[in-house]
Amino acid sequence: MIDVSRILAGDIRAGARLMREVDDRRPSALDALKALFPHTGKAYIVGITGNPGGGKSTVVDGLIAHYRAAGERVGVVAVDPTSPFSGGAILGDRIRMQRHATDDGVFIRSLATRGHLGGLSRSTFDVVAVLDAMGYDRVLIETVGVGQDEVDVMKAAHTSVVVTVPGLGDDIQAIKAGILEIADVLAVNKADREGADRTERDLLHMLDLRADGDRKDVEIIRTIANRGLGKGSGIAELAEAVERHRERTWTGEGGVRRARARAQAQIAELVRALLADRADRALASRGGLDGLAGAVVERRQDPWSLAESVVASL
Amino acid sequence: MIDVSRILAGDIRAGARLMREVDDRRPSALDALKALFPHTGKAYIVGITGNPGGGKSTVVDGLIAHYRAAGERVGVVAVDPTSPFSGGAILGDRIRMQRHATDDGVFIRSLATRGHLGGLSRSTFDVVAVLDAMGYDRVLIETVGVGQDEVDVMKAAHTSVVVTVPGLGDDIQAIKAGILEIADVLAVNKADREGADRTERDLLHMLDLRADGDRKDVEIIRTIANRGLGKGSGIAELAEAVERHRERTWTGEGGVRRARARAQAQIAELVRALLADRADRALASRGGLDGLAGAVVERRQDPWSLAESVVASL
Repeated sequence: MIDVSRILAGDIRAGARLMREVDDRRPSALDALKALFPHTGKAYIVGITGNPGGGKSTVVDGLIAHYRAAGERVGVVAVDPTSPFSGGAILGDRIRMQRHATDDGVFIRSLATRGHLGGLSRSTFDVVAVLDAMGYDRVLIETVGVGQDEVDVMKAAHTSVVVTVPGLGDDIQAIKAGILEIADVLAVNKADREGADRTERDLLHMLDLRADGDRKDVEIIRTIANRGLGKGSGIAELAEAVERHRERTWTGEGGVRRARARAQAQIAELVRALLADRADRALASRGGLDGLAGAVVERRQDPWSLAESVVASL
Repeated sequence: MIDVSRILAGDIRAGARLMREVDDRRPSALDALKALFPHTGKAYIVGITGNPGGGKSTVVDGLIAHYRAAGERVGVVAVDPTSPFSGGAILGDRIRMQRHATDDGVFIRSLATRGHLGGLSRSTFDVVAVLDAMGYDRVLIETVGVGQDEVDVMKAAHTSVVVTVPGLGDDIQAIKAGILEIADVLAVNKADREGADRTERDLLHMLDLRADGDRKDVEIIRTIANRGLGKGSGIAELAEAVERHRERTWTGEGGVRRARARAQAQIAELVRALLADRADRALASRGGLDGLAGAVVERRQDPWSLAESVVASL
């Protein structure tokens, strides 16, 4: 049984235990999250994503140092794309964050996809809620990539920062088509590299094409995050841009609208995740997927009829 | 009503219409797919993916030309990462494929994510089945990226080719952690660039770390795909490596095992997709997500209890 009061007191061990139970999809985790709910809603959640190689981890590292210097307690959810076979995660980049490991005011939690569609976004919402309840003022969600996974994970954030670098060339198309449209703030990292002007121009052009017409509100900040530990240039400016976005977006009527959209995303993720659990149970009761797959391979039954009968049996 | 016999006769218009109905999740599409099932299982399906900027489209273009020269009919499913707002897709790279547009033996179909988790993989399976039933000997699935989406989409392929390029540096980590482990054949494209040797060495090293121990079976082929239309170097070698993988993997007992794994993936995707449709209906019957989200924002109810009650009401 999870001791909710210990989590509310910020107890690291109790918090870590609940996060493991969240990962393992234990029913007890659900009960604890419900009990914590009235105590959440205080943390400000900043998502950071972008192409691999863009130096997101150094940006996150710089932001941690920045918020710590301002006296805030910082929780970090590091979302790892995972191999479907080994369950391995990209950890190399994260090692530099370890300098915060001895700081009581910083809690870093890695989160790997469990192979469940939609599971990653749900887990992110859940872990963010735990960090929020534990009293972290600021929660950073770091994720790698520009695909639908990242778009879904970023739904848990109040402000989404998309980090890019000069020299990606046509690859910037991929940012455009994917995650650019959820960006609230853009960071051009490694801005001392050749091509930073062109990258900024390209981003401005893409923002003009944004369907939601929010282009004017998206600030582009240049950063050089790897200038020695915590000495990154542009980090304070990036944090200020995040605060401006917060004030613009999360106050007044617009804030209520955004909060409803965020809650919608969370409920939808949870419903899908609970249904996926049900589907797993339904498949298990039918002798598992392997038996059904045999019928398809031997062409005795088609996969569409089989799937319908599994769902009908729920 | 879809005329199944016209699809089996290879009628382009009937095929395209069914694919649209698949996209729109029409019940009639499901009926047509069931009716087509006994006529499928003939096409050989090759997936091609990798980082943006790796020149996948030129590789696909080269393979189309190669298979056409061998007298095969070729269907292409071009999977587009899509903006959550505008529904826009990456089309720039695809324009070069248009030279095949006037060739009756080539059918190119773009597929964009519909915002549904898991929907992309399900749609890929469905569209591949239609192309198979239409009599295309070879179906190519092209997708951009190295995330979970791409891993899921590649489940529909018999042979998965992962295209990479020299000079990605540490970004190769992202390939490693993500999609490398599903690679059956690796292509180092733009192999005339500096660093091709190092890239190949890195890939060999990563293959050694592969959990499934299949390292020795994964061939690495160097290509320079953009040497003029259809004149790409290494394309024939790549096609030969695909054939070797096919013979090694899809014959005998191992072939049955692989076929069962593929059918399992398809059934699981379909079950999830049908459940997601149910979830949408359940949410609609509760007045939609917005009403539920209001209760969360006003902190009258927690999202976990709400999601449970939605699922319980199914």
